[in-house]
Amino acid sequence: MNKIINPNVCEWATLTQRPTQSFAAIEETVKGIFKEVQQKGDRAITKYTSFFDGIAIQNIKVSGAEIKEAVASVPQELKDAILMAKSNIEAFHSAQKTERIEIETMEGVSCWQEKRPIQKVGLYIPGGSAPLFSTVLMLAIPAQLAGCKEIVLCSPPDNEGKINQAILFAADLCGVTQILKVGGIQAIAGMTFGTATVPKVYKIFGPGNQFVTVAKQVATQFGLAIDMPAGPSELLVVADDSAIAAFVASDLLSQAEHGADSQVVLVTTSLKLLSAVEKEVEKQLEKLPRKAIAAKAIQNSKLICFENKELALDFINEYAPEHFIIATKNESFYVNGIQNAGSVFIGNYTPESAGDYASGTNHTLPTNGYAKNYNGVNLDSFLKAMTFQKISKKGIQNIGKTIEIMAEAEGLQAHKNAVTLRLNSLKQ
Amino acid sequence: MNKIINPNVCEWATLTQRPTQSFAAIEETVKGIFKEVQQKGDRAITKYTSFFDGIAIQNIKVSGAEIKEAVASVPQELKDAILMAKSNIEAFHSAQKTERIEIETMEGVSCWQEKRPIQKVGLYIPGGSAPLFSTVLMLAIPAQLAGCKEIVLCSPPDNEGKINQAILFAADLCGVTQILKVGGIQAIAGMTFGTATVPKVYKIFGPGNQFVTVAKQVATQFGLAIDMPAGPSELLVVADDSAIAAFVASDLLSQAEHGADSQVVLVTTSLKLLSAVEKEVEKQLEKLPRKAIAAKAIQNSKLICFENKELALDFINEYAPEHFIIATKNESFYVNGIQNAGSVFIGNYTPESAGDYASGTNHTLPTNGYAKNYNGVNLDSFLKAMTFQKISKKGIQNIGKTIEIMAEAEGLQAHKNAVTLRLNSLKQ
Repeated sequence: MNKIINPNVCEWATLTQRPTQSFAAIEETVKGIFKEVQQKGDRAITKYTSFFDGIAIQNIKVSGAEIKEAVASVPQELKDAILMAKSNIEAFHSAQKTERIEIETMEGVSCWQEKRPIQKVGLYIPGGSAPLFSTVLMLAIPAQLAGCKEIVLCSPPDNEGKINQAILFAADLCGVTQILKVGGIQAIAGMTFGTATVPKVYKIFGPGNQFVTVAKQVATQFGLAIDMPAGPSELLVVADDSAIAAFVASDLLSQAEHGADSQVVLVTTSLKLLSAVEKEVEKQLEKLPRKAIAAKAIQNSKLICFENKELALDFINEYAPEHFIIATKNESFYVNGIQNAGSVFIGNYTPESAGDYASGTNHTLPTNGYAKNYNGVNLDSFLKAMTFQKISKKGIQNIGKTIEIMAEAEGLQAHKNAVTLRLNSLKQ
Repeated sequence: MNKIINPNVCEWATLTQRPTQSFAAIEETVKGIFKEVQQKGDRAITKYTSFFDGIAIQNIKVSGAEIKEAVASVPQELKDAILMAKSNIEAFHSAQKTERIEIETMEGVSCWQEKRPIQKVGLYIPGGSAPLFSTVLMLAIPAQLAGCKEIVLCSPPDNEGKINQAILFAADLCGVTQILKVGGIQAIAGMTFGTATVPKVYKIFGPGNQFVTVAKQVATQFGLAIDMPAGPSELLVVADDSAIAAFVASDLLSQAEHGADSQVVLVTTSLKLLSAVEKEVEKQLEKLPRKAIAAKAIQNSKLICFENKELALDFINEYAPEHFIIATKNESFYVNGIQNAGSVFIGNYTPESAGDYASGTNHTLPTNGYAKNYNGVNLDSFLKAMTFQKISKKGIQNIGKTIEIMAEAEGLQAHKNAVTLRLNSLKQ
């Protein structure tokens, strides 16, 4: 772990930097596969599934029978846990519903805003060692609440040609309308162009490795929207002597086990706490099954001590962490002062894991400093706010002159004329 | 005008297509200028201002004296019009404020969502023949309402090295914190990297020509967010025999005068109305000062007649227009049925011009079919929704088991451990 004591402001730019990833090499591969999927459809999907996942699949659509089998095979204890998480996530995301907003800005001029669902959305769930059924909940629950008509889920098949049972159970539970055994670049390309089997969607959500990340970026060049640019997961903890070093260490490690490139930062104003956390991390690390991964991330992690909390807060806002844990006596200083963070966890008994799984907040959050300009996935991510207006005869008489003057001043005579014609018709 | 009667569904893909623009050639130019601005800062800004705008400017910062002069020189009539528009836009965007949303998903598990402003935003206002002071209102008003700390406005200087007076007046009125005489690719690059004079921002808003559009896309590769991908402006009118042909024609022409590439579409179920509108367009076109531009757009415009309103609505949702005017007897059929549109104008006395300038809704809207997955600029475009959670000892005891089971099932032991440690500490 790298210990930095009272860093000078000129060092902050370096300290807030994440490892830059070079996508240039990958981009060509991605564009090649996109082109092939666009031209050859399902044939290209099958080819690349065979190539990347090492399995030849006849039918990539998950059948009702497969779902039934999955539902039966998930242990009851896990089912209950998923159901409880679902209930919390649903409650929090339902509360985000906004009513139609309507005002009469002038007599006879009614304006309103209403949110309508994005009709077709695609959810990408990675395969691999950790079957992220929790991400299914985080994406499918708000999609269903928003009223999206088609909710397509793509996830790569394992070497038996199957998708993890808990993923299928969660997808079925949360109203996913179609599940496809296809992963990686070919899945994103499929949802971008549509094939005979994979539906075209308007917006793609979900995490993935660097290939999926680049593929999502390429998808935006073909008119699709994506949830957000993605990078390795991050956690920044601010803690003082009121924090419990063992808890802080466990949180840092829970982030570190995600991947060797995970970003783990401790900010503190107490050298004592800093040392205590360092020792605890070393101790707890030994016992982790994913020790090899976590150790690498910990190696690159930073423990930073600041002179005072004002400097600490400024630094944290400059870093803009994805996950931000506050374990200090004066919580409200950081709660009120944080401007740039994905999700904030407050107090000694609020581990990041709670938000990752079950408390109700979403775990799809902006990384890599994007908390400065993006928020995490929420109900609105699946909706578009449309505006409406209706102007009466009286209304156009009230507002007409203003429009005419402004249009004229911008040199847009036809804009003015659309109003003048109406005003004249009312003079007769 | 192209008349299409009862088009077959297989023709829809062609009918909804916008002219594709090739950005490949421009992209290299843009990237070159970005690199130069990143390396040389203000020197590159001055160089390209001189190159593209044909003027050597000593100080690109607009001074207080220049603003004072502008405020004094704008005619009172125009000032009053701008003030009335501001009041309406402010009222409608203020109404979009969302309160903090807080729920206790389980006893002791509190989750809330709060919106906080994007700290630094950049507004781009094009120069050229039409001085778009209305766009200043549409971007700066919500930015100020949201509480953005730095609101930077860039607009190219004219050949006297000045920015249009009405633009300065509007910017000053709406709380823009810094105005810079810099346009085009160099303005976007400046706000992306920051120079000695141009502040770095986190999100860039505003329209522009194809160079600015590509520059905004390139800015996203450097960590910035943008309001939305932009294309030529569009209007689709649905009208039946209850519509007034002269009004419909005036609306189509107000869109057409924007540029030769503007998209203008009439959808109807009445051949009679179709013919009447066609005649009116020809008649009104003759009198327009921007006739040459409008005529080109009208040449590519489409008048489409459908057998029934259900088909018409399906087509409109597939087209996903930026502006959508409903001039039919049964308004609610289209109002309730429209899923994909930027902004909707209802009835014979609601011209698009109203929303362009003064009714209160925003005029920065998704074009090119992006209404399927994006909304226009609104108050939320300047905010990030951050989530918070605080769990009590009781709370972690309630939710802990669920998190442990889920983390274990995903193979993330350290995630589980962060909970187990806390639960164990409470058992003692």
